[in-house]
Amino acid sequence: MHPRIYEAMSRPIVGHLDPYFFQVNEEIRAGLNACFGTKNDFTMVISGTGSAGMECAVANFVTPGSTVAIFANGYFSDRITEMARRHGGAVQRLEKPWGRTFTDAEAREFLHAVRPQVAAYVHAETSTGAHQPGGAICRAAHEVGALVIADCVTSLGGMPVRVDETGIDIAYSGTQKALGAPPGLAPITCSPRAVEFLRQRKSPPASWYLDLKLLLDYYESAHRYHHTAPISMFYALREALAIIEEEGLESRWERHRRNHERFVAGLAEMGIRMHVAEGERLWTLNTPVVPEGVDDAAVRRHLMEVRGIEIAGGFGPLAGKVFRIGTMGYGSTGENVDLLLEALREALSAAAGGRA
Amino acid sequence: MHPRIYEAMSRPIVGHLDPYFFQVNEEIRAGLNACFGTKNDFTMVISGTGSAGMECAVANFVTPGSTVAIFANGYFSDRITEMARRHGGAVQRLEKPWGRTFTDAEAREFLHAVRPQVAAYVHAETSTGAHQPGGAICRAAHEVGALVIADCVTSLGGMPVRVDETGIDIAYSGTQKALGAPPGLAPITCSPRAVEFLRQRKSPPASWYLDLKLLLDYYESAHRYHHTAPISMFYALREALAIIEEEGLESRWERHRRNHERFVAGLAEMGIRMHVAEGERLWTLNTPVVPEGVDDAAVRRHLMEVRGIEIAGGFGPLAGKVFRIGTMGYGSTGENVDLLLEALREALSAAAGGRA
Repeated sequence: MHPRIYEAMSRPIVGHLDPYFFQVNEEIRAGLNACFGTKNDFTMVISGTGSAGMECAVANFVTPGSTVAIFANGYFSDRITEMARRHGGAVQRLEKPWGRTFTDAEAREFLHAVRPQVAAYVHAETSTGAHQPGGAICRAAHEVGALVIADCVTSLGGMPVRVDETGIDIAYSGTQKALGAPPGLAPITCSPRAVEFLRQRKSPPASWYLDLKLLLDYYESAHRYHHTAPISMFYALREALAIIEEEGLESRWERHRRNHERFVAGLAEMGIRMHVAEGERLWTLNTPVVPEGVDDAAVRRHLMEVRGIEIAGGFGPLAGKVFRIGTMGYGSTGENVDLLLEALREALSAAAGGRA
Repeated sequence: MHPRIYEAMSRPIVGHLDPYFFQVNEEIRAGLNACFGTKNDFTMVISGTGSAGMECAVANFVTPGSTVAIFANGYFSDRITEMARRHGGAVQRLEKPWGRTFTDAEAREFLHAVRPQVAAYVHAETSTGAHQPGGAICRAAHEVGALVIADCVTSLGGMPVRVDETGIDIAYSGTQKALGAPPGLAPITCSPRAVEFLRQRKSPPASWYLDLKLLLDYYESAHRYHHTAPISMFYALREALAIIEEEGLESRWERHRRNHERFVAGLAEMGIRMHVAEGERLWTLNTPVVPEGVDDAAVRRHLMEVRGIEIAGGFGPLAGKVFRIGTMGYGSTGENVDLLLEALREALSAAAGGRA
């Protein structure tokens, strides 16, 4: 993390009803709206991690018995599925192998066939490195009167999200990915259409902690006590958003794109190809294919023990098949990419040597 | 907060599957078990604030259709009621005016009449300042085969909780009260009996984020990924628990008791009486009665504006009738109590002057 963010967390805490806290919250809201690419009034942070953001979206917009159409191509769409079922949704899934994305025609056909109340997709799939554009999904969903939930955990702050232009009704994220803050908060934004749904909703969601109507009463003008927000995390997020504003959002995206491409080019020179097709890749999270015969765990262990670099492995259907390597936030620099390529070359060679 | 806790939050973050993170977590567990007064294996922190701890207890132990007996004498028992209903519980309440507590005989009679699956009470009621002992509740609940949930948000770390001796099955708290850390985490501990209930439970709780079985798979040996825990908050809590251990838990309780009594004595000298009967008061949170004819909001505003001291007002049936004044954690010192008494005397006199 950027040193300024560590410093921000050590600032004196204030009470959860202190006017200063709500001022901090307003600054966060403005910064998040810029990152989300929205003019929504309804933007706030949930006092939990990205998964709490996901459950907040599901709990508030999936009512018992409603049909939920899920674009299933990775771990996090499976998680949305599980949550939607727990909250009483009748789930319909359009499935693709992990790492593939959905075409406009597939999205349209699926949504017109299922005619759901809610559609959900993962904009940036952390388990596969795939980037799912949402325009066609949102257009088709709105044609059949559905609200659209988009998981933007690994894209917000590192890639364009463009909530308004895309037509996303509910987008959520986490703070510890491309926003560059510590984990602990989940930004969420809701379109006027989603807010209208909340207003009309008759029975409350099962979750009191994640009830957006109650949260709105707290963060909006009434400031009715709901819970004691984790103020130090708010300081950290505000600082992270200030850093983003100083860098400029477009410049930041461009930095992420450039360093991702530098990494992919370096991998290609080593003969390593990417799991996700060109043009469908995240700039924040890369999934190179583990070379034939290489023990991916040995490579990851070597990187951690010798270089102190943590990369992740694939899991589920991609276990042992891909590495998952973040190039995001403060850490996304040309120097880091070059260091990473060198370390990876060394670790692969050591793993191959160990095998011989 | 203690300066060491601010410093702790600025330590470098590590990944949520890093062995170091789990080491920090084990240290937290040991420290929490000491504060809770338990030998439970099942003690962890929820990645949300105290209210997330409450919802976690309710979501995991109140199954749809089960009877929940609630000892209702303040705001937080009302909140448990609301959550229990949302999670499908059939709630039975034994009601008392805010600030009163339940006798052993009342507890026994109620629980034997209702024969619930779950009983819940608030050990330290932040809305009233009342302290509810739990021994009789737990004994009677166990006689009828019920599990007992106790809200210890405002007692843990500042007053004896004694989970094992009392017989509490599920106790939860928050980090920002007498533990002296920032808000953001909710400690929870479960008795072997409660763990057995979880094991036998057929359908999962509505909340995925607060599902204790999944959380156990993450924090226990398997370390199966669940969510990205807010590591900086863990550092803060670990430091807070280390400070408690250095002071000594019994000494810390004694400090809280002593400063509470010093405050009550000072109030008595000013002719101000306490809302809660002697012997039933919290040592962490005091509820002096607002003197006849005094505008409590004017007093609070004066304290905040002139002295920078934040005290809370009563709400619900106690709106305008009591002040709610914390004497807990790092801030519970004789000097602070004297300063507070002096400031309060001044504010009351100014409020009276303004009225005259």
